[in-house]
Amino acid sequence: MAKYNKVSEAVIRRLPKYYRYLKDMEKNGVQRISSRELSDKMGLTASQIRQDFNCFGGFGQQGYGYNVSELCNEIRKILGLHKNYNVIIAGAGNLGQALANYIGFEREGFYIKAIFDVNPRLIGMSIRGIQIMDIDAMKDFITNNDIQVGVVCVPKDKAQEVTNQMVESGIKSIWNFAPIDVETPDDVAVENVHLSDTLYTLVYKMNEI
Amino acid sequence: MAKYNKVSEAVIRRLPKYYRYLKDMEKNGVQRISSRELSDKMGLTASQIRQDFNCFGGFGQQGYGYNVSELCNEIRKILGLHKNYNVIIAGAGNLGQALANYIGFEREGFYIKAIFDVNPRLIGMSIRGIQIMDIDAMKDFITNNDIQVGVVCVPKDKAQEVTNQMVESGIKSIWNFAPIDVETPDDVAVENVHLSDTLYTLVYKMNEI
Repeated sequence: MAKYNKVSEAVIRRLPKYYRYLKDMEKNGVQRISSRELSDKMGLTASQIRQDFNCFGGFGQQGYGYNVSELCNEIRKILGLHKNYNVIIAGAGNLGQALANYIGFEREGFYIKAIFDVNPRLIGMSIRGIQIMDIDAMKDFITNNDIQVGVVCVPKDKAQEVTNQMVESGIKSIWNFAPIDVETPDDVAVENVHLSDTLYTLVYKMNEI
Repeated sequence: MAKYNKVSEAVIRRLPKYYRYLKDMEKNGVQRISSRELSDKMGLTASQIRQDFNCFGGFGQQGYGYNVSELCNEIRKILGLHKNYNVIIAGAGNLGQALANYIGFEREGFYIKAIFDVNPRLIGMSIRGIQIMDIDAMKDFITNNDIQVGVVCVPKDKAQEVTNQMVESGIKSIWNFAPIDVETPDDVAVENVHLSDTLYTLVYKMNEI
Protein backbone atom coordinates (compact mmCIF):
# COMPACT_ATOMS: atom_id res chain seq x y z
CA MET A 1 0.00 0.00 0.00
CA ALA A 2 1.41 3.38 -1.03
CA LYS A 3 2.35 5.52 1.94
CA TYR A 4 4.07 8.38 0.13
CA ASN A 5 2.02 8.88 -3.00
CA LYS A 6 3.40 12.22 -4.01
CA VAL A 7 7.09 11.49 -3.68
CA SER A 8 8.81 12.07 -7.01
CA GLU A 9 11.11 9.58 -8.68
CA ALA A 10 14.01 12.03 -8.24
CA VAL A 11 13.54 12.13 -4.46
CA ILE A 12 13.21 8.35 -4.28
CA ARG A 13 16.48 8.01 -6.17
CA ARG A 14 18.24 10.30 -3.70
CA LEU A 15 17.11 8.30 -0.65
CA PRO A 16 19.73 5.54 -0.99
CA LYS A 17 22.40 8.21 -1.26
CA TYR A 18 21.23 9.93 1.95
CA TYR A 19 21.19 6.54 3.57
CA ARG A 20 24.77 5.80 2.50
CA TYR A 21 26.11 9.11 3.73
CA LEU A 22 24.25 8.93 7.03
CA LYS A 23 25.37 5.36 7.68
CA ASP A 24 28.98 6.44 7.11
CA MET A 25 28.61 9.39 9.46
CA GLU A 26 26.96 7.23 12.10
CA LYS A 27 29.84 4.77 11.81
CA ASN A 28 32.31 7.63 12.21
CA GLY A 29 30.61 8.77 15.39
CA VAL A 30 28.93 11.92 14.03
CA GLN A 31 25.89 12.56 16.23
CA ARG A 32 24.27 15.64 14.76
CA ILE A 33 24.38 17.35 11.38
CA SER A 34 22.79 20.47 9.90
CA SER A 35 21.18 20.40 6.47
CA ARG A 36 23.97 22.81 5.49
CA GLU A 37 26.73 20.37 6.45
CA LEU A 38 24.88 17.46 4.87
CA SER A 39 24.44 19.48 1.67
CA ASP A 40 28.18 20.29 1.54
CA LYS A 41 29.03 16.62 1.83
CA MET A 42 26.47 15.43 -0.69
CA GLY A 43 26.68 18.14 -3.31
CA LEU A 44 23.01 19.13 -2.94
CA THR A 45 21.59 22.42 -1.69
CA ALA A 46 20.43 22.63 1.93
CA SER A 47 17.01 23.70 0.72
CA GLN A 48 16.82 20.65 -1.56
CA ILE A 49 17.58 18.40 1.38
CA ARG A 50 14.92 20.04 3.56
CA GLN A 51 12.40 19.72 0.75
CA ASP A 52 13.27 16.06 0.22
CA PHE A 53 12.87 15.27 3.91
CA ASN A 54 9.58 17.19 4.04
CA CYS A 55 8.14 14.64 1.58
CA PHE A 56 8.31 12.21 4.48
CA GLY A 57 7.13 14.60 7.17
CA GLY A 58 10.53 16.21 7.88
CA PHE A 59 12.93 14.94 10.48
CA GLY A 60 14.65 17.94 12.02
CA GLN A 61 14.04 21.04 14.02
CA GLN A 62 14.85 24.33 12.33
CA GLY A 63 18.30 25.55 13.35
CA TYR A 64 18.96 22.50 15.45
CA GLY A 65 20.04 20.02 12.82
CA TYR A 66 19.36 16.32 12.47
CA ASN A 67 20.23 13.53 14.85
CA VAL A 68 22.32 11.38 12.48
CA SER A 69 21.41 8.01 13.87
CA GLU A 70 17.68 8.80 14.13
CA LEU A 71 17.64 10.19 10.61
CA CYS A 72 19.53 7.17 9.33
CA ASN A 73 16.97 4.90 10.97
CA GLU A 74 14.05 6.85 9.54
CA ILE A 75 15.44 6.60 6.02
CA ARG A 76 16.19 2.92 6.55
CA LYS A 77 12.50 2.44 7.41
CA ILE A 78 11.27 4.56 4.51
CA LEU A 79 13.37 2.47 2.12
CA GLY A 80 12.03 -0.67 3.78
CA LEU A 81 15.50 -1.82 4.83
CA HIS A 82 14.37 -2.56 8.39
CA LYS A 83 12.80 -5.73 6.97
CA ASN A 84 14.48 -8.82 5.53
CA TYR A 85 14.08 -9.99 1.96
CA ASN A 86 14.65 -13.34 0.33
CA VAL A 87 16.45 -13.08 -2.99
CA ILE A 88 17.29 -15.41 -5.86
CA ILE A 89 19.65 -14.77 -8.74
CA ALA A 90 19.02 -16.10 -12.25
CA GLY A 91 22.31 -16.47 -14.11
CA ALA A 92 25.52 -17.66 -12.46
CA GLY A 93 27.89 -15.95 -14.88
CA ASN A 94 30.47 -13.45 -13.68
CA LEU A 95 27.94 -10.81 -12.73
CA GLY A 96 25.60 -13.24 -10.96
CA GLN A 97 28.59 -14.59 -9.06
CA ALA A 98 29.83 -11.08 -8.24
CA LEU A 99 26.46 -10.21 -6.72
CA ALA A 100 26.30 -13.52 -4.83
CA ASN A 101 29.77 -12.86 -3.43
CA TYR A 102 29.00 -9.38 -2.20
CA ILE A 103 28.32 -9.66 1.53
CA GLY A 104 27.06 -6.07 1.80
CA PHE A 105 23.58 -7.15 0.73
CA GLU A 106 23.13 -9.41 3.73
CA ARG A 107 24.08 -6.62 6.08
CA GLU A 108 21.03 -4.77 4.76
CA GLY A 109 18.75 -7.78 5.10
CA PHE A 110 18.89 -9.25 1.60
CA TYR A 111 19.39 -13.01 1.83
CA ILE A 112 20.33 -14.76 -1.38
CA LYS A 113 18.68 -18.16 -1.18
CA ALA A 114 19.74 -19.73 -4.46
CA ILE A 115 21.27 -19.06 -7.86
CA PHE A 116 19.92 -20.60 -11.05
CA ASP A 117 21.63 -21.37 -14.31
CA VAL A 118 21.34 -23.57 -17.40
CA ASN A 119 25.01 -24.57 -17.44
CA PRO A 120 25.44 -28.17 -16.19
CA ARG A 121 29.04 -27.38 -15.21
CA LEU A 122 27.82 -24.75 -12.74
CA ILE A 123 24.73 -26.55 -11.41
CA GLY A 124 25.53 -28.22 -8.10
CA MET A 125 28.36 -25.82 -7.25
CA SER A 126 27.91 -23.26 -4.53
CA ILE A 127 29.05 -19.71 -3.80
CA ARG A 128 29.48 -18.78 -0.14
CA GLY A 129 27.18 -21.69 0.66
CA ILE A 130 24.54 -20.54 -1.82
CA GLN A 131 23.67 -23.37 -4.20
CA ILE A 132 23.63 -23.03 -7.96
CA MET A 133 20.57 -24.93 -9.16
CA ASP A 134 19.02 -25.85 -12.49
CA ILE A 135 16.94 -22.98 -13.82
CA ASP A 136 14.12 -25.48 -14.44
CA ALA A 137 13.77 -25.70 -10.66
CA MET A 138 13.43 -21.93 -10.24
CA LYS A 139 9.67 -21.57 -10.32
CA ASP A 140 9.07 -24.24 -7.68
CA PHE A 141 11.85 -22.82 -5.53
CA ILE A 142 10.30 -19.35 -5.59
CA THR A 143 6.88 -20.68 -4.70
CA ASN A 144 8.20 -22.78 -1.83
CA ASN A 145 10.69 -20.33 -0.33
CA ASP A 146 8.87 -17.01 -0.02
CA ILE A 147 11.17 -15.14 -2.41
CA GLN A 148 10.47 -11.42 -2.83
CA VAL A 149 13.34 -10.23 -5.03
CA GLY A 150 14.50 -11.77 -8.31
CA VAL A 151 17.83 -10.72 -9.79
CA VAL A 152 18.15 -11.17 -13.55
CA CYS A 153 21.74 -11.79 -14.70
CA VAL A 154 20.98 -13.90 -17.78
CA PRO A 155 21.79 -12.91 -21.37
CA LYS A 156 19.69 -10.20 -23.02
CA ASP A 157 17.62 -12.61 -25.12
CA LYS A 158 16.53 -14.63 -22.08
CA ALA A 159 15.89 -11.73 -19.69
CA GLN A 160 12.18 -11.17 -20.37
CA GLU A 161 11.41 -14.90 -20.31
CA VAL A 162 13.16 -15.36 -16.97
CA THR A 163 11.45 -12.24 -15.61
CA ASN A 164 8.06 -13.66 -16.64
CA GLN A 165 8.82 -16.93 -14.86
CA MET A 166 9.75 -15.04 -11.72
CA VAL A 167 6.59 -12.96 -11.86
CA GLU A 168 4.38 -16.01 -12.50
CA SER A 169 5.83 -17.63 -9.40
CA GLY A 170 4.93 -14.65 -7.23
CA ILE A 171 8.06 -12.49 -7.09
CA LYS A 172 7.19 -8.86 -6.45
CA SER A 173 10.37 -7.12 -7.50
CA ILE A 174 12.82 -7.61 -10.35
CA TRP A 175 16.38 -6.29 -10.32
CA ASN A 176 17.48 -6.63 -13.91
CA PHE A 177 21.08 -6.39 -15.14
CA ALA A 178 20.54 -7.64 -18.69
CA PRO A 179 21.04 -4.76 -21.16
CA ILE A 180 17.34 -4.48 -22.00
CA ASP A 181 14.34 -2.96 -20.21
CA VAL A 182 12.31 -5.95 -18.99
CA GLU A 183 8.63 -5.36 -18.40
CA THR A 184 6.53 -6.39 -15.43
CA PRO A 185 2.84 -6.12 -14.49
CA ASP A 186 1.81 -3.00 -12.52
CA ASP A 187 1.99 -4.81 -9.22
CA VAL A 188 5.59 -5.94 -9.69
CA ALA A 189 8.37 -3.40 -9.14
CA VAL A 190 11.28 -3.40 -11.55
CA GLU A 191 14.68 -1.73 -11.76
CA ASN A 192 16.48 -2.06 -15.05
CA VAL A 193 20.12 -1.36 -14.27
CA HIS A 194 22.01 -0.22 -17.33
CA LEU A 195 25.64 -0.25 -16.35
CA SER A 196 26.75 1.31 -19.62
CA ASP A 197 24.56 4.38 -19.00
CA THR A 198 26.96 5.50 -16.28
CA LEU A 199 29.93 4.84 -18.57
CA TYR A 200 28.40 7.06 -21.25
CA THR A 201 27.68 9.79 -18.70
CA LEU A 202 31.28 9.49 -17.56
CA VAL A 203 32.78 10.07 -21.01
CA TYR A 204 30.34 12.92 -21.63
CA LYS A 205 31.64 14.54 -18.46
CA MET A 206 35.27 13.85 -19.38
CA ASN A 207 34.77 15.46 -22.77
CA GLU A 208 33.13 18.49 -21.14
CA ILE A 209 35.93 19.10 -18.63
CA MET B 1 36.45 22.12 -23.22
CA ALA B 2 32.84 22.48 -22.12
CA LYS B 3 30.46 22.75 -25.04
CA TYR B 4 27.16 22.56 -23.17
CA ASN B 5 27.77 24.51 -19.99
CA LYS B 6 24.19 24.87 -18.90
CA VAL B 7 23.05 21.29 -19.33
CA SER B 8 21.77 19.95 -16.02
CA GLU B 9 22.90 16.70 -14.46
CA ALA B 10 19.36 15.32 -14.89
CA VAL B 11 19.43 15.91 -18.65
CA ILE B 12 22.90 14.39 -18.93
CA ARG B 13 21.67 11.30 -17.11
CA ARG B 14 18.78 10.92 -19.55
CA LEU B 15 21.01 11.05 -22.64
CA PRO B 16 22.20 7.43 -22.43
CA LYS B 17 18.57 6.33 -22.14
CA TYR B 18 17.57 8.29 -25.26
CA TYR B 19 20.53 6.75 -26.98
CA ARG B 20 19.49 3.21 -26.01
CA TYR B 21 15.92 3.68 -27.16
CA LEU B 22 16.92 5.32 -30.42
CA LYS B 23 19.50 2.64 -31.19
CA ASP B 24 16.83 -0.01 -30.66
CA MET B 25 14.39 1.80 -32.92
CA GLU B 26 17.02 2.27 -35.60
CA LYS B 27 17.82 -1.44 -35.42
CA ASN B 28 14.10 -2.22 -35.78
CA GLY B 29 13.87 -0.09 -38.90
CA VAL B 30 11.94 2.85 -37.41
CA GLN B 31 12.79 5.90 -39.52
CA ARG B 32 10.87 8.74 -37.97
CA ILE B 33 9.38 9.36 -34.53
CA SER B 34 7.43 12.19 -32.93
CA SER B 35 8.32 13.46 -29.47
CA ARG B 36 4.88 12.13 -28.47
CA GLU B 37 5.69 8.58 -29.55
CA LEU B 38 9.15 8.77 -28.01
CA SER B 39 7.64 10.02 -24.76
CA ASP B 40 5.17 7.12 -24.67
CA LYS B 41 7.97 4.63 -25.10
CA MET B 42 10.29 6.22 -22.57
CA GLY B 43 7.86 7.25 -19.87
CA LEU B 44 8.73 10.96 -20.13
CA THR B 45 6.48 13.82 -21.25
CA ALA B 46 6.80 15.05 -24.84
CA SER B 47 7.51 18.53 -23.53
CA GLN B 48 10.33 17.17 -21.35
CA ILE B 49 11.88 15.51 -24.37
CA ARG B 50 11.67 18.69 -26.46
CA GLN B 51 13.20 20.68 -23.60
CA ASP B 52 16.00 18.15 -23.21
CA PHE B 53 16.83 18.25 -26.91
CA ASN B 54 16.71 22.05 -26.92
CA CYS B 55 19.68 22.03 -24.52
CA PHE B 56 21.68 20.80 -27.49
CA GLY B 57 20.12 23.05 -30.09
CA GLY B 58 17.05 20.89 -30.82
CA PHE B 59 16.98 18.21 -33.50
CA GLY B 60 13.50 18.19 -34.96
CA GLN B 61 11.02 20.26 -36.85
CA GLN B 62 7.78 21.08 -35.07
CA GLY B 63 5.03 18.67 -36.14
CA TYR B 64 7.38 16.70 -38.34
CA GLY B 65 9.09 14.48 -35.79
CA TYR B 66 12.65 13.31 -35.56
CA ASN B 67 14.67 11.28 -38.03
CA VAL B 68 15.59 8.35 -35.78
CA SER B 69 18.95 7.59 -37.23
CA GLU B 70 20.04 11.25 -37.40
CA LEU B 71 18.91 11.83 -33.84
CA CYS B 72 20.68 8.69 -32.69
CA ASN B 73 23.87 9.90 -34.35
CA GLU B 74 23.57 13.35 -32.80
CA ILE B 75 23.19 11.91 -29.32
CA ARG B 76 26.05 9.51 -29.98
CA LYS B 77 28.22 12.53 -30.78
CA ILE B 78 27.00 14.55 -27.79
CA LEU B 79 27.86 11.64 -25.52
CA GLY B 80 31.25 11.37 -27.23
CA LEU B 81 30.57 7.80 -28.38
CA HIS B 82 31.71 8.53 -31.95
CA LYS B 83 35.27 8.36 -30.58
CA ASN B 84 37.21 5.36 -29.28
CA TYR B 85 38.48 5.04 -25.74
CA ASN B 86 41.19 2.89 -24.22
CA VAL B 87 40.16 1.34 -20.93
CA ILE B 88 41.84 -0.59 -18.13
CA ILE B 89 40.20 -2.45 -15.28
CA ALA B 90 41.73 -2.64 -11.80
CA GLY B 91 40.51 -5.75 -10.02
CA ALA B 92 40.00 -9.09 -11.75
CA GLY B 93 37.40 -10.44 -9.33
CA ASN B 94 33.95 -11.46 -10.51
CA LEU B 95 32.82 -7.95 -11.32
CA GLY B 96 36.04 -7.00 -13.12
CA GLN B 97 35.77 -10.21 -15.13
CA ALA B 98 32.08 -9.62 -15.87
CA LEU B 99 32.91 -6.18 -17.30
CA ALA B 100 35.86 -7.58 -19.27
CA ASN B 101 33.60 -10.26 -20.72
CA TYR B 102 30.90 -7.87 -21.86
CA ILE B 103 31.39 -7.31 -25.57
CA GLY B 104 28.84 -4.48 -25.70
CA PHE B 105 31.47 -1.96 -24.60
CA GLU B 106 33.61 -2.57 -27.67
CA ARG B 107 30.67 -1.99 -29.94
CA GLU B 108 30.53 1.53 -28.52
CA GLY B 109 34.25 2.09 -28.91
CA PHE B 110 35.53 1.16 -25.45
CA TYR B 111 38.58 -1.06 -25.80
CA ILE B 112 39.74 -2.83 -22.66
CA LYS B 113 43.51 -2.98 -22.92
CA ALA B 114 44.44 -4.77 -19.70
CA ILE B 115 43.17 -5.90 -16.31
CA PHE B 116 45.24 -5.53 -13.16
CA ASP B 117 45.13 -7.52 -9.95
CA VAL B 118 47.26 -8.40 -6.92
CA ASN B 119 46.39 -12.09 -6.97
CA PRO B 120 49.34 -14.16 -8.33
CA ARG B 121 46.90 -16.90 -9.36
CA LEU B 122 45.14 -14.50 -11.72
CA ILE B 123 48.15 -12.61 -13.03
CA GLY B 124 49.18 -14.01 -16.43
CA MET B 125 45.72 -15.33 -17.25
CA SER B 126 43.63 -13.62 -19.88
CA ILE B 127 39.95 -12.92 -20.54
CA ARG B 128 38.87 -12.73 -24.18
CA GLY B 129 42.50 -12.08 -25.01
CA ILE B 130 42.81 -9.29 -22.44
CA GLN B 131 45.76 -9.97 -20.15
CA ILE B 132 45.55 -9.87 -16.37
CA MET B 133 48.71 -8.14 -15.18
CA ASP B 134 50.30 -7.31 -11.84
CA ILE B 135 48.79 -4.14 -10.39
CA ASP B 136 52.34 -2.88 -9.80
CA ALA B 137 52.64 -2.56 -13.58
CA MET B 138 49.48 -0.47 -13.88
CA LYS B 139 50.96 3.01 -13.72
CA ASP B 140 53.55 2.33 -16.42
CA PHE B 141 50.95 0.64 -18.58
CA ILE B 142 48.65 3.67 -18.39
CA THR B 143 51.45 6.05 -19.26
CA ASN B 144 52.59 3.96 -22.22
CA ASN B 145 49.23 3.01 -23.70
CA ASP B 146 47.17 6.19 -23.87
CA ILE B 147 44.47 5.00 -21.48
CA GLN B 148 41.53 7.37 -20.93
CA VAL B 149 39.18 5.37 -18.75
CA GLY B 150 40.03 3.51 -15.53
CA VAL B 151 37.52 1.06 -14.08
CA VAL B 152 37.83 0.45 -10.34
CA CYS B 153 36.69 -3.03 -9.28
CA VAL B 154 38.96 -3.47 -6.25
CA PRO B 155 37.77 -3.82 -2.64
CA LYS B 156 36.42 -0.73 -0.89
CA ASP B 157 39.56 -0.12 1.20
CA LYS B 158 41.81 -0.03 -1.89
CA ALA B 159 39.52 1.97 -4.17
CA GLN B 160 40.81 5.48 -3.41
CA GLU B 161 44.45 4.38 -3.58
CA VAL B 162 43.96 2.72 -6.96
CA THR B 163 42.02 5.76 -8.19
CA ASN B 164 44.91 8.01 -7.14
CA GLN B 165 47.38 5.84 -9.03
CA MET B 166 45.23 6.02 -12.14
CA VAL B 167 44.91 9.79 -11.86
CA GLU B 168 48.65 10.24 -11.28
CA SER B 169 49.33 8.29 -14.46
CA GLY B 170 47.10 10.56 -16.51
CA ILE B 171 43.72 8.85 -16.66
CA LYS B 172 40.92 11.38 -17.16
CA SER B 173 37.88 9.39 -16.13
CA ILE B 174 37.21 6.92 -13.34
CA TRP B 175 34.35 4.44 -13.40
CA ASN B 176 34.17 3.19 -9.83
CA PHE B 177 32.26 0.12 -8.66
CA ALA B 178 33.68 -0.11 -5.14
CA PRO B 179 30.95 0.75 -2.61
CA ILE B 180 32.49 4.10 -1.68
CA ASP B 181 32.57 7.52 -3.38
CA VAL B 182 36.14 7.91 -4.63
CA GLU B 183 37.39 11.44 -5.14
CA THR B 184 39.24 12.87 -8.10
CA PRO B 185 40.74 16.27 -8.98
CA ASP B 186 38.45 18.72 -10.83
CA ASP B 187 39.91 17.79 -14.20
CA VAL B 188 39.19 14.08 -13.81
CA ALA B 189 35.62 12.88 -14.34
CA VAL B 190 34.27 10.24 -11.99
CA GLU B 191 31.17 8.06 -11.79
CA ASN B 192 30.67 6.23 -8.55
CA VAL B 193 28.30 3.40 -9.38
CA HIS B 194 26.44 2.20 -6.32
CA LEU B 195 24.72 -0.99 -7.37
CA SER B 196 22.87 -1.31 -4.07
CA ASP B 197 21.22 2.10 -4.56
CA THR B 198 19.04 0.61 -7.29
CA LEU B 199 18.23 -2.38 -5.05
CA TYR B 200 17.07 -0.05 -2.29
CA THR B 201 14.97 1.96 -4.74
CA LEU B 202 13.49 -1.31 -5.96
CA VAL B 203 12.32 -2.44 -2.52
CA TYR B 204 11.01 1.03 -1.77
CA LYS B 205 8.88 0.76 -4.91
CA MET B 206 7.80 -2.78 -4.07
CA ASN B 207 6.66 -1.66 -0.63
CA GLU B 208 4.76 1.28 -2.13
CA ILE B 209 2.83 -0.82 -4.68
